[in-house]
Amino acid sequence: MTHIDPDAIRQGDRLALSRALTAVENGDPPGQDVQTALFPYTGKAHLVGITGAPGTGKSTLVNQLAKAFRHTDINGAPKVAILAVDPSSPFSGGALLGDRIRMQDLSGDPGIFIRSMASRGALGGLAHSTAAFATLLDAAGFELIFIETVGAGQAEVDIAQLAHTVVVVEAPGLGDDIQAIKAGILEIADILVVNKADRPGAENTARALEAMLGMAQGRGNFPPSGKHLITTFENTQEEPIPAPADWEPPVLCVTATEGKGVAELVSKIREHHTYLHDSGLWQVKEANRLRRDLENLIRDALLKDWQRNLDEEKFHSVLEDLIQRKCSPMEALERLL
Amino acid sequence: MTHIDPDAIRQGDRLALSRALTAVENGDPPGQDVQTALFPYTGKAHLVGITGAPGTGKSTLVNQLAKAFRHTDINGAPKVAILAVDPSSPFSGGALLGDRIRMQDLSGDPGIFIRSMASRGALGGLAHSTAAFATLLDAAGFELIFIETVGAGQAEVDIAQLAHTVVVVEAPGLGDDIQAIKAGILEIADILVVNKADRPGAENTARALEAMLGMAQGRGNFPPSGKHLITTFENTQEEPIPAPADWEPPVLCVTATEGKGVAELVSKIREHHTYLHDSGLWQVKEANRLRRDLENLIRDALLKDWQRNLDEEKFHSVLEDLIQRKCSPMEALERLL
Repeated sequence: MTHIDPDAIRQGDRLALSRALTAVENGDPPGQDVQTALFPYTGKAHLVGITGAPGTGKSTLVNQLAKAFRHTDINGAPKVAILAVDPSSPFSGGALLGDRIRMQDLSGDPGIFIRSMASRGALGGLAHSTAAFATLLDAAGFELIFIETVGAGQAEVDIAQLAHTVVVVEAPGLGDDIQAIKAGILEIADILVVNKADRPGAENTARALEAMLGMAQGRGNFPPSGKHLITTFENTQEEPIPAPADWEPPVLCVTATEGKGVAELVSKIREHHTYLHDSGLWQVKEANRLRRDLENLIRDALLKDWQRNLDEEKFHSVLEDLIQRKCSPMEALERLL
Repeated sequence: MTHIDPDAIRQGDRLALSRALTAVENGDPPGQDVQTALFPYTGKAHLVGITGAPGTGKSTLVNQLAKAFRHTDINGAPKVAILAVDPSSPFSGGALLGDRIRMQDLSGDPGIFIRSMASRGALGGLAHSTAAFATLLDAAGFELIFIETVGAGQAEVDIAQLAHTVVVVEAPGLGDDIQAIKAGILEIADILVVNKADRPGAENTARALEAMLGMAQGRGNFPPSGKHLITTFENTQEEPIPAPADWEPPVLCVTATEGKGVAELVSKIREHHTYLHDSGLWQVKEANRLRRDLENLIRDALLKDWQRNLDEEKFHSVLEDLIQRKCSPMEALERLL
């Protein structure tokens, strides 16, 4: 595990960047060092989460978006990174790999960087690595970072906490039953896309989504973006989201395979970026995210510290008593602390 | 906040039980006291998670299951509790309430207890309350506890960690796109139910689910039950799941509204209960759950302890420097600890 030069990453050395990402993914110490060194140069990138069920065509859409952002304004075009996060389902693994191959037509552009990331065991680990990856890509000068993930389980919570803008991708032909399960995912959506809009039922899906959004807003309890931000530190409350949160998530019909509707989506993503800055929401999201990261670091450090001095034999005997119901969890805690 | 008598709860006093549940839900101190007092009397209940998309008919199914378990063997019939967890979506709130009303026909049976639980703010809070509720119901002598929750987001991770047996409910008419998103939920399923089996497409849905299960098993990487168990204590590894995990999740077709297939489902739930005990998996799951609970208690206690001595002004100044990128998260941590 050799040192990784942070300056090389800032100057666009892709090999150094790749090595840093791998070190982060493996939890190697140089990965932590390079993150710390690069942290001062972060905070500029626009993190755009792209989430939805497998089969909705997320990867093709991200592919097209990356191209569109690169080509519309060639002088001022942002450097674009694509981070494909696979929450390690035995089913989706193959699909994502296939998607990566389809993205080869982007690889000739030095302004685009693509990286897949697989899950590493524990559920929390993936969120941590994704955030660390975003930090490195941000410092490496990527102004637009697409984070593509399957919208299910923990991944949808994670992306809501990390991304500035969340694009939720749907496809036509979803039954009524399914639209309801999407409630959770609608709450995190800043922009909704009905992809594969050339298929039958696209209009219906779009209308159903609009109805659900309207219903939620009409009931007056639709959570503004950032609702999923959690704080666990009682005495360090997060900043409230500025009210009124006057961004109404638009529903866009897109046929990514043909590039139809992609330009409108690019506009909406830019518009949301502007909205975030104008409303002050960008700063609030950043502050809340950094606070949460710091809190997690503190929690882990306190635990590690405690574990260092832990009498393992005692821990196991207390645990055994707990399992035998000879002591309660609170009594076990008292014996251990 | 008055004292709640733990003995009254053990002796079947429903008012005391309800008051204890409310205290737990509100985070009142008597709720914690009564949990501690009752803990020695827990560990007997079979926790059965029922999860799936809204509209799959989960509540009707749970209703029928509760009746069936109560009526099949009236002398040895288990006391049954139903815990309906609403992960606080603005969309599903109303639906769950409606479901509760439909369950009124169960309320005449003193061997059945029904309780709804709404989310309380932070995402982690719901999981915590659900586990605490299960403890109280267990000590109150409910031998079978159904935990009904919408299978989306964090809730599906939580139920996999808490329940001994997870029943995943589907309904016919799901598109291909959707079957894929179910991958995450399939991983946690011990039993799969295609409800509303009188509708067209039920056979196809069942076959598709079986194919996905077969595919996963064929690839040799289908995780055994308990895969989602996480440990964060590096030096206190969880018990490995006994291998081979030779339970193959069955796929059952049920029409809950007519009671069709419910008897088979009852059998399968009993069979899984027996399997858990015979294989030793029950003990492993219990041990891992208690260990996880203890670890969380320790983590929280360490944090609270640290916060008690925290210089808030310092915390905010460090946080401000972090937001300004004047220090890195690791540097912030060093300054605070």
